[in-house]
Amino acid sequence: MSSGITEARAFAPASVGNIGVGFDLLGHSIDGPRDVATVRRIDAPEVRIAAIRGEVEGVAGIPLEAARNTAGQALMALRAALDLPFGLELELDKGIPLGSGLGGSAASCVAALVAANALLDTPLSREALYAFALDGEAVASGSRHGDNVAPMLLGGVVLATASRMVALEAPDWLHAVVVHPDQMLETRRARAVLAEPYPLSQVVAHSACLALFLTGLQRGDAALIGEGLKDLLVEPRRAPLIPGFAQVKRAAMDHGALGASISGAGPSVFAWFASKAAAEAAAVSMRTAFAEAGFGSRAYVSPVRGPRAEVLA
Amino acid sequence: MSSGITEARAFAPASVGNIGVGFDLLGHSIDGPRDVATVRRIDAPEVRIAAIRGEVEGVAGIPLEAARNTAGQALMALRAALDLPFGLELELDKGIPLGSGLGGSAASCVAALVAANALLDTPLSREALYAFALDGEAVASGSRHGDNVAPMLLGGVVLATASRMVALEAPDWLHAVVVHPDQMLETRRARAVLAEPYPLSQVVAHSACLALFLTGLQRGDAALIGEGLKDLLVEPRRAPLIPGFAQVKRAAMDHGALGASISGAGPSVFAWFASKAAAEAAAVSMRTAFAEAGFGSRAYVSPVRGPRAEVLA
Repeated sequence: MSSGITEARAFAPASVGNIGVGFDLLGHSIDGPRDVATVRRIDAPEVRIAAIRGEVEGVAGIPLEAARNTAGQALMALRAALDLPFGLELELDKGIPLGSGLGGSAASCVAALVAANALLDTPLSREALYAFALDGEAVASGSRHGDNVAPMLLGGVVLATASRMVALEAPDWLHAVVVHPDQMLETRRARAVLAEPYPLSQVVAHSACLALFLTGLQRGDAALIGEGLKDLLVEPRRAPLIPGFAQVKRAAMDHGALGASISGAGPSVFAWFASKAAAEAAAVSMRTAFAEAGFGSRAYVSPVRGPRAEVLA
Repeated sequence: MSSGITEARAFAPASVGNIGVGFDLLGHSIDGPRDVATVRRIDAPEVRIAAIRGEVEGVAGIPLEAARNTAGQALMALRAALDLPFGLELELDKGIPLGSGLGGSAASCVAALVAANALLDTPLSREALYAFALDGEAVASGSRHGDNVAPMLLGGVVLATASRMVALEAPDWLHAVVVHPDQMLETRRARAVLAEPYPLSQVVAHSACLALFLTGLQRGDAALIGEGLKDLLVEPRRAPLIPGFAQVKRAAMDHGALGASISGAGPSVFAWFASKAAAEAAAVSMRTAFAEAGFGSRAYVSPVRGPRAEVLA
């Protein structure tokens, strides 16, 4: 179980969790901000975090204690499952803004796992890494949902259940805009508004959207994707927590978006378009809408078939 | 708007509504019992029902008043929308047991529409008939759900939303068993138990099943279909209303069913299998299980890609 390599670096991309219609189930990676993890073998039989760096706000507040850190917990789970005879030391370079809804904690977790995997004599498959990534994600969010870690592991659009990932087809002309405003949304608050149960009629309407969306994605049918890309369950409850959301969404739809909703737990807003040009034009208007609501923002334009995490040379 | 033909007959097949994981949204037709409608042009500017016949129990109780009859209402909607200069007289030959969960009222409605359509100079597409079929179905069930009428109109497995039908791919080796026991289940009671709202965790688990099911169906992947073909929402609430259900489902699963659940509002039970041989073997055991619970039954084995309604020569 020991390879010649004693240190490896890997990146993981940001992602759009939920994709509106797939709460806790669907996500896609984006070609935008990324986290980088450096993992090295150490003699001490433990996982330790040597440093967490980055330009993004709040980095100083991320726990260095491995068991309380999403990436640390993932490496502990990997090390225990494989009964590794060596320890792992981790350094994180955060590039994904914290609390943005872009899967920052998931990316740290996946980058660390992919780097650590490169130190193994017999690296595991991405599928095998998934369970450890869920272990890590649970530290950050309190639940084992894979809609961020799965697209980071496989790239593109992924269906993530509690036990497995299914990479989904997606046409290459599909492009996403993700706009991250300078505002904070407490994840706890974002979860709390979802507690009230849902009437069957809403569940059926939601299921119809999900079925249209998946069928459209598989057929590369923009009209079907657009019919389905609606969040009838979560967005109505969370949108009031994001000042400017309605205007930003309207700006996207006015630019021909197939759909637009909240990325992950927010406050980032994403929208899908049938071409890169449409996405780029919309990104400007979406940022303007946030500015008019009083918020600076950053926008990312990416193919929906975004990259997967990879080892860096 | 008047063709040379003055009388036409058409059949519509029975169907499995909901398919477990697609409440009010997914259904498939079966090659089994069917309803036949005869429609003729009359001078009187009205829709009237001349006769309702059939070997099935309860036929005498079906309303002959067009506005209160699912097929009558569908023809009234068609006639009004097209501003037809002639009336329509309808005779129904019921072959699908009433209150069985096999889409009997939907089949009368679709058979009548397909027959009436043949009397038009420019027959409508199946897609255009859908809205009228929903109008008819609403008379029977009080809601515009298309999971029975849509597969009857298009054949095979169909995704039916309030506004459109999407025919779905399905591998030809997929076979269904549908067992109809000699017991009555009041639709009103079957609907009443669904009223209590659903927690988000259950909605997410249900959505995961739906996504796996649709992806499996599209890929012809029996394992994925099996993972997804579960009814986590409705079956737990309705199954207690169907004596013998648990044993019949177990009999199906013991014979390698990909999944088994309630057909439509019940009391019929359906199961899907990866081959016709497996379905035929299971059908015997499923009937035995109902017999042991004290109920006689009929079993139908059909390709999941069942027939669509057609005009009869």
